[in-house]
Amino acid sequence: MDLIDKIKEFRNFPKKGIQFKDFSEILKSPLTLRYVCDEISKYYHTKDVDVFAGIESRGFPIACALAIKYNKGMIMIRKKGKLPGKTTQTQYKTEYEKSVMEIQNDAVKKNQRIIICDDLLATGGTAQAAAKIIEKRHGKVAGFAFIIELTELGGRNVINKYKCKTLIQY
Amino acid sequence: MDLIDKIKEFRNFPKKGIQFKDFSEILKSPLTLRYVCDEISKYYHTKDVDVFAGIESRGFPIACALAIKYNKGMIMIRKKGKLPGKTTQTQYKTEYEKSVMEIQNDAVKKNQRIIICDDLLATGGTAQAAAKIIEKRHGKVAGFAFIIELTELGGRNVINKYKCKTLIQY
Repeated sequence: MDLIDKIKEFRNFPKKGIQFKDFSEILKSPLTLRYVCDEISKYYHTKDVDVFAGIESRGFPIACALAIKYNKGMIMIRKKGKLPGKTTQTQYKTEYEKSVMEIQNDAVKKNQRIIICDDLLATGGTAQAAAKIIEKRHGKVAGFAFIIELTELGGRNVINKYKCKTLIQY
Repeated sequence: MDLIDKIKEFRNFPKKGIQFKDFSEILKSPLTLRYVCDEISKYYHTKDVDVFAGIESRGFPIACALAIKYNKGMIMIRKKGKLPGKTTQTQYKTEYEKSVMEIQNDAVKKNQRIIICDDLLATGGTAQAAAKIIEKRHGKVAGFAFIIELTELGGRNVINKYKCKTLIQY
């Protein structure tokens, strides 16, 4: 299936100079949503995964779809201030912003094998921070799953010590 | 299954005077995540639903889990400024904030039957606005699905012209 036709591009969104790649069409169609989950399922073995982590907020639907499909759990990595209780934080820099991500301290059990999910791999800044926060909580990063990869931004190199599955490469 | 044991309460989060009910544990456990989807699946008939809409951002995992389970699509109702392209907006008021929600104009096809998903039904302000925005785009609200209902806030009355499934009532 040629998923690239499903990605719409928007100039200067959310900031000037950014060409935003919108994966909404993939979620909207049962066929493509299922295909995405199937492809990621082929890449990772069910028995090697305990939990899917979604990065706020476009990573949430992907992580939870995979969790249901694999019969696993789903956890949320959020921006600062959105999660109650005791949390662990990590700073990060994306293609266009500097921010802090957070996870609840009880979200991860020691040695749990976690796949981190998001819509897009760009510079790898967010992905790297997500791995760091999982490891701070003593979880194991079993790999990453992204819909889109912007290859020229080199994000894959930043997270090259982990497995990484992307479905569309630009 | 007694889901209520899975809900953790946090005083004064995200604002003073709010007792936040956290459904993270439900997502985290494969057993409860699957149970939630099964219960909602029993209430709505697959053939009467075209799409699951998630309200940003705790509604996203629920909507997408259901979409995969039912073999349907998933769409996102987001806070203002998060979605690219042409959008439709609606103002709303929750238990603790005033805000604007947005949907992409091409997210909904005419007469599509949509279940709106979120973690919590409180005053019904968000739910009502979500229904309004779906109807502005000529979609049909087939119903609502929430994990938690705060019955004393009367949200169910606000959306009483729609079907509504909640799993935990306080």
